[in-house]
Amino acid sequence: MNNIELLADLKEKGAGIDAVMKEDLAIIESPLLAEIIHHAIFQGGKRIRPLLTLLAAGLVGTPPADTVRLAIAFEYLHAASLLHDDVIDHAILRRGAETANTIWGMEPVILAGDYLHAHAMALASEVGGPAAMALIGRATAAMVESEFLQMRNAREILLSEENYFSVLRGKTAALIAAACEAGIAHNQGTAEQRLALRTYGTNLGLAFQIVDDLLDYLGDPAKTGKALGNDFQEGKMTLPLIKTMARADARDHEVLTGLLKATPQERNRELTLVHALVEKYQGFSLARAQAEALLGEALAGLAIFAETPDKAELGSLPAQTKLIPSGCKESLTGLAHYVLSRNK
Amino acid sequence: MNNIELLADLKEKGAGIDAVMKEDLAIIESPLLAEIIHHAIFQGGKRIRPLLTLLAAGLVGTPPADTVRLAIAFEYLHAASLLHDDVIDHAILRRGAETANTIWGMEPVILAGDYLHAHAMALASEVGGPAAMALIGRATAAMVESEFLQMRNAREILLSEENYFSVLRGKTAALIAAACEAGIAHNQGTAEQRLALRTYGTNLGLAFQIVDDLLDYLGDPAKTGKALGNDFQEGKMTLPLIKTMARADARDHEVLTGLLKATPQERNRELTLVHALVEKYQGFSLARAQAEALLGEALAGLAIFAETPDKAELGSLPAQTKLIPSGCKESLTGLAHYVLSRNK
Repeated sequence: MNNIELLADLKEKGAGIDAVMKEDLAIIESPLLAEIIHHAIFQGGKRIRPLLTLLAAGLVGTPPADTVRLAIAFEYLHAASLLHDDVIDHAILRRGAETANTIWGMEPVILAGDYLHAHAMALASEVGGPAAMALIGRATAAMVESEFLQMRNAREILLSEENYFSVLRGKTAALIAAACEAGIAHNQGTAEQRLALRTYGTNLGLAFQIVDDLLDYLGDPAKTGKALGNDFQEGKMTLPLIKTMARADARDHEVLTGLLKATPQERNRELTLVHALVEKYQGFSLARAQAEALLGEALAGLAIFAETPDKAELGSLPAQTKLIPSGCKESLTGLAHYVLSRNK
Repeated sequence: MNNIELLADLKEKGAGIDAVMKEDLAIIESPLLAEIIHHAIFQGGKRIRPLLTLLAAGLVGTPPADTVRLAIAFEYLHAASLLHDDVIDHAILRRGAETANTIWGMEPVILAGDYLHAHAMALASEVGGPAAMALIGRATAAMVESEFLQMRNAREILLSEENYFSVLRGKTAALIAAACEAGIAHNQGTAEQRLALRTYGTNLGLAFQIVDDLLDYLGDPAKTGKALGNDFQEGKMTLPLIKTMARADARDHEVLTGLLKATPQERNRELTLVHALVEKYQGFSLARAQAEALLGEALAGLAIFAETPDKAELGSLPAQTKLIPSGCKESLTGLAHYVLSRNK
């Protein structure tokens, strides 16, 4: 399966996930609550977390039919955290559209996030039982703890690579790892298989965020929907800059530190200089190399799984194996490569 | 057991609940997160929800040792919702002390509410399994739906008694009913016993809120910690006023409607007049009678339970009954009477 075929396949699965979410969300009574939650969920989004749950479950045989309901709980948890993040950051736009708090104000949006959060956990408990809930409990705790770590970090001018990764682990990797592990756990995966998926998810999540940070410097704003150099302008140190600071000579180090202490306007004026300095010290290529290494670790975790047969091969197999979903390992591998090569 | 003995007994149990919460919350890593959550939980509060879980479980025999960990999940859910409510209402004071959002701003407080909410659900799942989670899922959904109903009601000048009770059911009664039912479910209560506790909890919750509304008009601010007539000043119709409007003659009805359309300052100037009109149409006594009727229904639900023996009687009973906790039914009855007679 090439990249285009993979994306088409995932898009089709994503549409199926959307249909399940729409049906599930029909229980909401208040029209305004329903409107906010629909805006939060169906305004784009790649459905990566529920796809991972489904693919992970498929690694060890046909998943139970209710796996998709466990999977959507992870999309809900993601959407709930974005709703609250946008309130907290007073964010005006997300994915090129107005945020819910821009449209409806913070009051109903906080409540809508709470609803989605509670609904996701109730759903995960109903479908995945205490095993799924334990995973989600740990992941959501890690998400909040990482926000507090980030607040503490924000008081310092310089961010260490260690603190950068600590934040990433909670902010992005924890929920992705839980989505993967919950999937395979729901299909009776062994402890070894669960560990492999946790490793895959954690490293995929970290790499995903590093690529996000690279796109902030190097992406095409028309495709990413975000202004170039936004992170630096906000005074946020991400991996390319952290790598640069660690290798810069005293003079360049001083220039960058000075800019980090300056105003956003001053930083905005010097974006070209900063870009050149990160280039000079190979901050971009070092960050990319680290994302690649993390993806290598993610994929190494999958080595214990046999290739699942693709559709063409199914005809020649004994009848009872026909139920094994095709290409789950291939899709998980493809997803990892897509994360690295994506431009939005 | 008289009222004073009951309160002393509940206070002792409450201190035990506090100790379990303190130990449980030690897992929080971020110092600021821990500080906010401690402020939210240990700044007063009567621990009514966890007490109800424990007492309900005790109605059918000695509760499993982990019942107290299920019980504290309900205090956490209550505290999480108060944290978010105070952010949404921009509330400055609660129980006479500064709210968390006054001290730390809305950003970390939204996150602390999220943490407590997620932690409560993970804990309830771990201890109470899918049965407890289903109850909590329904209660938290009802809580958010009722907030949206309240927002919609706020756009109308006049509130119907039906809408008033619909809001109350979600806002207060749903979580109290879930706390009661989860307790007895955790101790293997039958469907009939669970229904009895749901009935008890729902009606207790409704009566509790009506008494709150009465105290807003009639209470001693030094004891309640709230200014007198606060609800009316905010243009909020509660049961005494709803009963009054339903019986008022055309002229008085017009006076009250005019005030509800006026500014908070104008309403504040006319509090004495409003008080006299509610008195004239027996709004206070009708509301109190309704609270009493609801408590009657709450207690009627408990009729299926045998009296649990109190300590003095235990000596004369066969050995195997010695483990039955004493006075649970009596405490639940006492709590219901306390709700009606409380002055703060």
